[in-house]
Amino acid sequence: MSKHTTTFDLAAIMPDPASKQSLYHQLYHALRLAILDGRLGRGARLPSTRELSATLGVARNTVMTAFDQLLAEGYLESRVGDGTYVSPSLPDELLHVRPPDRFPPQPLPATEQLSARYRAITSAPMGGYSDVQIPRAFGTGIPALDAFPYALWARLVARQWRAPQPQLLTYGDAAGYRPLRDAITEYLGTARGVRCTADQVLITAGSQHALDLVAQVLLDPGDTVWFEDPGYRGARAALLGSGAQLHPVPVDHEGLSVAHGLSTCPTARMAYVTPSHQYPTGVTMSLARRLALLEWAQESNAWILEDDYDSEYRYLGRPLSSLQGLDKANRVLYIGTFSKVLYPGLRLGYLVTPPALTAPFTRALQLAHRHLSVFDQAVLADFINEGHFARHIRRMRALYAERQDCFVRTLQQELGDYLTVDCAEAGLHLVAWLSPNLVDHAVAQAARQQGVEVAPISAYTMQSPVRAGLVLGYAMLDEAEMRAGVQGLKRAVIQVEGKG
Amino acid sequence: MSKHTTTFDLAAIMPDPASKQSLYHQLYHALRLAILDGRLGRGARLPSTRELSATLGVARNTVMTAFDQLLAEGYLESRVGDGTYVSPSLPDELLHVRPPDRFPPQPLPATEQLSARYRAITSAPMGGYSDVQIPRAFGTGIPALDAFPYALWARLVARQWRAPQPQLLTYGDAAGYRPLRDAITEYLGTARGVRCTADQVLITAGSQHALDLVAQVLLDPGDTVWFEDPGYRGARAALLGSGAQLHPVPVDHEGLSVAHGLSTCPTARMAYVTPSHQYPTGVTMSLARRLALLEWAQESNAWILEDDYDSEYRYLGRPLSSLQGLDKANRVLYIGTFSKVLYPGLRLGYLVTPPALTAPFTRALQLAHRHLSVFDQAVLADFINEGHFARHIRRMRALYAERQDCFVRTLQQELGDYLTVDCAEAGLHLVAWLSPNLVDHAVAQAARQQGVEVAPISAYTMQSPVRAGLVLGYAMLDEAEMRAGVQGLKRAVIQVEGKG
Repeated sequence: MSKHTTTFDLAAIMPDPASKQSLYHQLYHALRLAILDGRLGRGARLPSTRELSATLGVARNTVMTAFDQLLAEGYLESRVGDGTYVSPSLPDELLHVRPPDRFPPQPLPATEQLSARYRAITSAPMGGYSDVQIPRAFGTGIPALDAFPYALWARLVARQWRAPQPQLLTYGDAAGYRPLRDAITEYLGTARGVRCTADQVLITAGSQHALDLVAQVLLDPGDTVWFEDPGYRGARAALLGSGAQLHPVPVDHEGLSVAHGLSTCPTARMAYVTPSHQYPTGVTMSLARRLALLEWAQESNAWILEDDYDSEYRYLGRPLSSLQGLDKANRVLYIGTFSKVLYPGLRLGYLVTPPALTAPFTRALQLAHRHLSVFDQAVLADFINEGHFARHIRRMRALYAERQDCFVRTLQQELGDYLTVDCAEAGLHLVAWLSPNLVDHAVAQAARQQGVEVAPISAYTMQSPVRAGLVLGYAMLDEAEMRAGVQGLKRAVIQVEGKG
Repeated sequence: MSKHTTTFDLAAIMPDPASKQSLYHQLYHALRLAILDGRLGRGARLPSTRELSATLGVARNTVMTAFDQLLAEGYLESRVGDGTYVSPSLPDELLHVRPPDRFPPQPLPATEQLSARYRAITSAPMGGYSDVQIPRAFGTGIPALDAFPYALWARLVARQWRAPQPQLLTYGDAAGYRPLRDAITEYLGTARGVRCTADQVLITAGSQHALDLVAQVLLDPGDTVWFEDPGYRGARAALLGSGAQLHPVPVDHEGLSVAHGLSTCPTARMAYVTPSHQYPTGVTMSLARRLALLEWAQESNAWILEDDYDSEYRYLGRPLSSLQGLDKANRVLYIGTFSKVLYPGLRLGYLVTPPALTAPFTRALQLAHRHLSVFDQAVLADFINEGHFARHIRRMRALYAERQDCFVRTLQQELGDYLTVDCAEAGLHLVAWLSPNLVDHAVAQAARQQGVEVAPISAYTMQSPVRAGLVLGYAMLDEAEMRAGVQGLKRAVIQVEGKG
């Protein structure tokens, strides 16, 4: 065997002293890659460490360290009194590993099967869930990010970091940071009439996480769930993930039609409702319906999943108390989120469980991800306890009421011939009902071409017929953005009408 | 009907002007509660708003607002020209709601059934997963929290908050914050030989979350998974949650026995391995075994789940490259975490998927919780990109090597007659093998009574017999804590031996 059986020029792997990587690392990787892609062939003899250190202008120790690792990993072998060789027994399969730039994203081969759970959870049509959502007219679910008190929040963050408590750094309670759970309990009792102890409050990464958790812990394939029709698609996906069947129940001006559910599917295991502000129609569920729903749940041992996603913002009347607060039989699971009240990037929400379910849900959280980032929870607890939260809600309620007012007037002025706006009593969005000759899907598509995002209400329905309408978010838009958006929407409507 | 048909003294609900709640809120809640618990009976007539405002010493407007809400919610009804009454049609079930302090935590009634998924995920024995884990001798998996550069981290946090980017505040990319994914890709390529693009790197809330996600997306009930025996219990729970069967495969000095897996269960759908530093034994998987495992996965279209939970800390030799880096067939999913390298409370980790699985996993993350807190991700990206991460690992590697050395010497001095310590090549824990007359469960129990936490290695086994030993974490302990822990362990061992 000649001294260099390979044509590979070892001098070409000259390490770069300016690199962030150590010289040893660079040399190790270069040699390993040369072996893997075949430039250094099986059985090739390497120069001695002395020679190579001279060639490359690096310390001999650096070369020896790189060789040691390659020996330990089996790429090289050392023959006593002879020298170092590329291992002749390296199997073919190991060689010619493709470099990363030859790993383009690929479709999943047809032979691969994803889990039944994955196929179920992704079987519902979803919208507005992709990538970063930059606020623009008239996307839904985003609050006024420009009105958030960043400087204040940053001060609270800095204070927590000044002398970090050990419990913020180590593994924490899966149910969430206790002082935050206490603060939420007090807030929910006062503002939402939720009757619970802090033990029952579990911290989640927003309401989607809470929905997913409820589905995983309480539902089995084959179970049936009453689902508001039209209804929230994020909930639909989460519930389907459990393998449950969704039974669509129509929504009228009093909310979910409990009578319809009772007559068509009395044995459902759960009902999903948004009683404070039905998503997307904006209806508030009447007290009579609430009581009927609770009665059904109690009698049939079913669960009620109350998603109270944006009830903090009510402009007309006062916020109605939660369904949970009326429940004497421990059948309601209550979900809320800080995404709409503070900012979505925070990813914090909560699930209030009946007392008997607290332990199983905490265990499920532990096994799913142990717990969530603790610093954010500590900062949020301070924000609530020091009164900033209540103040922020009051400020935003005034701002959004003003914005809604401006939005409704602009819509009526510019598009009064084509749509009717229900003045929304609550929340960050409203529904504009289209005149009978307009198809909401067509308007939404034309609007997209004008750079305006509007969700057709028919996209939220499962089977119940619904009057054509558009779901329009406005809370995060200033007057200029709103007016520009309305102009874009107007062009879209006129275009669709011209075709109609 | 008399003017006051109720014996309830309305003057007793006097609002407190010093309370954080508005007077209206206090009045509303007091009246509502009095109706719900029957003190204000059905059909009872209320005093006029003028009378009540005089009695309570509050503005008449306050009383009217409270009445308005109770009217809107159906608790009261107004009779024109007559007055305001507690609604006579309130159903019995609504009344006598129990106050929250009568909702003690309850066991789940036997009639309730939690989901099959819940029962599966909680069927594995788990240890060390409850509540806040304060570092103490000799718990596992916790790094030196006192050595983390808090002041530096706090500076990076403050810098991100000084002028928050909009993309940190709104709904973000479910796959994670892109600059962090770029930083992790570069780090993994250099330090762990992982071959991927940033597209393939998904951010998770630690490694448990990644394990759970893999199980949910790739496994179905009835699938079989090769599982290291002894092995990591967190992974066991996550995989069981999918309904899969775990097939125990023994671990020897070269790691998972691929030959055993091949001969007993060649058709498994997945293999779970910790090749860099087997948990809990500490063994490094040999190159031959790695290649055999990859060959099996490629030929049988199975997945390999590589959990690289603490390979950053290798004291002897150099870190071995990842299995993922040797995989030509895109069969490996690679998991890592920042819990052991930075601090567990951060709750950030990552999953590197084969290119074809990136889109499905991103979709699954979206539907499970949309995404994770973005600020922490941005701060971590800065921490890595500015070189602090590499520096911190180097500092900790030196510190832990020193601590291990001290720990091994102390154990040998004090307990040399009872146990043998393998010098751990890597990680934050080591295994002390007990002399044949000692039962590890008994020692662990006696140690607990001495205030010392040690995990018996038999607690990690499924069926393969294992020599009795203790899994001991040491990285987070200073010399005094270590010595005190060893003394406690010594008392426990002597006590058990005396009984034996």
